[in-house]
Amino acid sequence: MKKILVLLLFLQTFFISVSVTKKSISAEDRLPSWNNEMKIKIVNYIDMVTDPKNPGFIPESERFAVFDNDGTLWAEQPTVEELFIIYYAKKMTEKNPSLKNKHPFSRINDFYSNGKFVIKDRRIFDELVGIVHEGMTNKEFQKTAEDFFRETKYPGLNVPLEKIVYQPQLELMDYLRKNGFKVYICSGGETDFMRVISEKYYGISKEQVIGSELVFEYNENTNIMVRRSKLYTDNNGRAKAENIYHRLGRPAVFAVGNVRSGGDIYMLRYSQASEYPSFQLLIDHDDEKREFLYSESDNISLEWAKKYNWNVVSMKNDWKQIFPK
Amino acid sequence: MKKILVLLLFLQTFFISVSVTKKSISAEDRLPSWNNEMKIKIVNYIDMVTDPKNPGFIPESERFAVFDNDGTLWAEQPTVEELFIIYYAKKMTEKNPSLKNKHPFSRINDFYSNGKFVIKDRRIFDELVGIVHEGMTNKEFQKTAEDFFRETKYPGLNVPLEKIVYQPQLELMDYLRKNGFKVYICSGGETDFMRVISEKYYGISKEQVIGSELVFEYNENTNIMVRRSKLYTDNNGRAKAENIYHRLGRPAVFAVGNVRSGGDIYMLRYSQASEYPSFQLLIDHDDEKREFLYSESDNISLEWAKKYNWNVVSMKNDWKQIFPK
Repeated sequence: MKKILVLLLFLQTFFISVSVTKKSISAEDRLPSWNNEMKIKIVNYIDMVTDPKNPGFIPESERFAVFDNDGTLWAEQPTVEELFIIYYAKKMTEKNPSLKNKHPFSRINDFYSNGKFVIKDRRIFDELVGIVHEGMTNKEFQKTAEDFFRETKYPGLNVPLEKIVYQPQLELMDYLRKNGFKVYICSGGETDFMRVISEKYYGISKEQVIGSELVFEYNENTNIMVRRSKLYTDNNGRAKAENIYHRLGRPAVFAVGNVRSGGDIYMLRYSQASEYPSFQLLIDHDDEKREFLYSESDNISLEWAKKYNWNVVSMKNDWKQIFPK
Repeated sequence: MKKILVLLLFLQTFFISVSVTKKSISAEDRLPSWNNEMKIKIVNYIDMVTDPKNPGFIPESERFAVFDNDGTLWAEQPTVEELFIIYYAKKMTEKNPSLKNKHPFSRINDFYSNGKFVIKDRRIFDELVGIVHEGMTNKEFQKTAEDFFRETKYPGLNVPLEKIVYQPQLELMDYLRKNGFKVYICSGGETDFMRVISEKYYGISKEQVIGSELVFEYNENTNIMVRRSKLYTDNNGRAKAENIYHRLGRPAVFAVGNVRSGGDIYMLRYSQASEYPSFQLLIDHDDEKREFLYSESDNISLEWAKKYNWNVVSMKNDWKQIFPK
């Protein structure tokens, strides 16, 4: 009897190790920049929801993933959109030099000191936001943002902007798509700004970007759409959950955000309202050496992660590589 | 020389007729309920934009079609959503009989006379709209709308609601999808209401419905989304163009609307802002026998169709069959 038990235990161990190995290997192809512990959690979830025989199976039409952008898909110290505002304000003064001595344009140089980008005066910055976003046609805006992405290097890291995206997330989005997921961005960034690079940087098409939006005004005579510096929706906090429902008509089952200002906790929490098994990833910026180190004063994102059983990704321990080579 | 010319002319005529016949035959499979004249226009457009060698080619990622719903995809005399409001107000009085004698519930029976549905007093109706749309959770609303679609017959025609969709449009949407188009609804109807049947009736998934939207309120403690009877967006007129841009990030190249109140002209016009060749269909309700006969007092939709060179579909002459068998 004992012998049989030992044999059974041996066989069980053998098969479990085979199945884990199999999973790790198949995952290895897909998620090479993820260390094993978190990778296996992700792979196990995907295996479950794509297996028609598993009670946790999710029909392909219901497989939606939402990713925050700043701090989740690319670096946010500073945010790329902040760089764009100052870039465009400068362009305006180049076109029209008389602006240079006028408020708030006269303050543009304050934002750079020793090659670093710093917002010392948030009010001045917000005034420039209002000016930059007012009155451009959508086409002019796209062109301007394209120029910006081509010409700009990220301060501090001194690399093109395409190189500040997180390699492990590119692999994860690809892995999700190969498993029938529709991958969306859900970010506080402005929708049209992200749309300029979403396809090229992330493989996410324009209609799958959910962000903050300005009011647009359509003129049927010119057949032109003009941007107004007035918010149509501010896609942060609870609005992220509400806008996911506005756009998708149901919660997304796979939600990824990051620790910074508690801005993603509602989006992650809302994924747990799905009738299907859901999965949450919260990126913690704990890697001072390879990226940046920052946390929240009130610790709310990590607290909710514990309370609601989300997976916390330590950039330091869970990611083999941060940026693309 | 003359002989050669005659031969060339003959050959040319021969090849043109072969090519037209080929197109009509291949289209026959796809659009059996469309008569030839309009069918050939549609097929020629699709052939052009899907042919990589044609200068009018549209990459698959840019192929978007938008269809209005009421009067374009299904009958609108009365609109289904109007029926739903009265249906739900009645349900409320059944659950809570004390409402029956209270304003505006006491007026519910006014909307039906001799089996016909008539809105005599628009103010009473609007009061009921406000009550019906306030405070339900999204899940309760879905359940209620599902019940409505199962239980209701269309007044006048006395058929289930699935039988008031237009058969030629089902064929057209299917034909577009088979040619790489992403087909969206863009309607003044409430988004969540349409989402209940968009997949089943039209093969359009929930995230591809653009409509009027209520304000939603998310509560992270209960993880529930609640509907408020306040408009987030009223998707009519110019807003249709603006919301297409909000949702898709570009104009749709294929746009279909109908003559009634000029509500679709901005949407059709905006498709002509695309950098690619576009196609517009305007449905004219001129078939008193098989459907309904109505027009616009100011004739604006037909005027714009002429001005901007849109294709006008006569339900009487262009559609072999109106409703599914």
